[in-house]
Amino acid sequence: MPNTASPTARLQHYLHRHIPLAATMQVRVDSHTPLQALVLAAPLAPNVNDKGCAFGGSLASLMTLAGWGLIELALQARDEDCDVYVQDSTLRYLAPVWGDLRAEARLGDGEDWQTFFNQLAARGRGRLTTIIQVHDGAGTAACSMSARFVAKRRIAADTASASAA
Amino acid sequence: MPNTASPTARLQHYLHRHIPLAATMQVRVDSHTPLQALVLAAPLAPNVNDKGCAFGGSLASLMTLAGWGLIELALQARDEDCDVYVQDSTLRYLAPVWGDLRAEARLGDGEDWQTFFNQLAARGRGRLTTIIQVHDGAGTAACSMSARFVAKRRIAADTASASAA
Repeated sequence: MPNTASPTARLQHYLHRHIPLAATMQVRVDSHTPLQALVLAAPLAPNVNDKGCAFGGSLASLMTLAGWGLIELALQARDEDCDVYVQDSTLRYLAPVWGDLRAEARLGDGEDWQTFFNQLAARGRGRLTTIIQVHDGAGTAACSMSARFVAKRRIAADTASASAA
Repeated sequence: MPNTASPTARLQHYLHRHIPLAATMQVRVDSHTPLQALVLAAPLAPNVNDKGCAFGGSLASLMTLAGWGLIELALQARDEDCDVYVQDSTLRYLAPVWGDLRAEARLGDGEDWQTFFNQLAARGRGRLTTIIQVHDGAGTAACSMSARFVAKRRIAADTASASAA
């Protein structure tokens, strides 16, 4: 993947290359509005369950990746070199999803990027809660997740441990 | 899969046949103590993330399947023909999992099978909360999930709608 590719094309390539399950799920970036929303999509066929609708684990995976990707893209745009981990999440499955999966991630209520970037600058790590929604074909909410992530600066962590030693 | 196969062998076969992601994840039934615990396992390789540890979506999927399977096996043992859906779940990722994944499902605190079976008999549906734990190689809790499931009797639902019609 050349460096001239768009950030979202690079994200999709990265997911397929480094997370085998994302490749199997055929996750793709549907749309991205920097610092606002990231939409990931996946076809139903590789993500179906025994009842013919979307498997809860696929929905959980897609929503987790959408929240993670929203933060990852924001960090990359600032040339921040971080590992981003999910810490905890709460999911509600409201209705079965009978078609393709589409998960939209946004920041949680009361969260803001500047506080997160300030935490990173001050302590080498920052936390951020994202809200991810899946809607069915008619636009009704089918699944929602609140997921909290932590980003750890790779370089800052080295510096911190060196100065603590 | 012949009917003479054990319930756990049939469950594993069913998962691989009807949930493509479970097949990709190479989910297998590790052990089962009826009405007490179901342990599902999966190798790290197909479930790895970009950091070399278990992908959060794989952990969420394996834990969801473990809770689902515990209930499914209990229903099958009573010849109950139900669809079992996950309704909501809360996950905490406590530490990265660097080896194979192993998720143990048990009933949640204050839950009991008899109440669940009574709900099913009375209303054709019952709810049950399960607790699922993933431990790392040293036995330390790495991930925990509380997941609530609903079981809906297929036959009872038909009868109910027929008598309501």
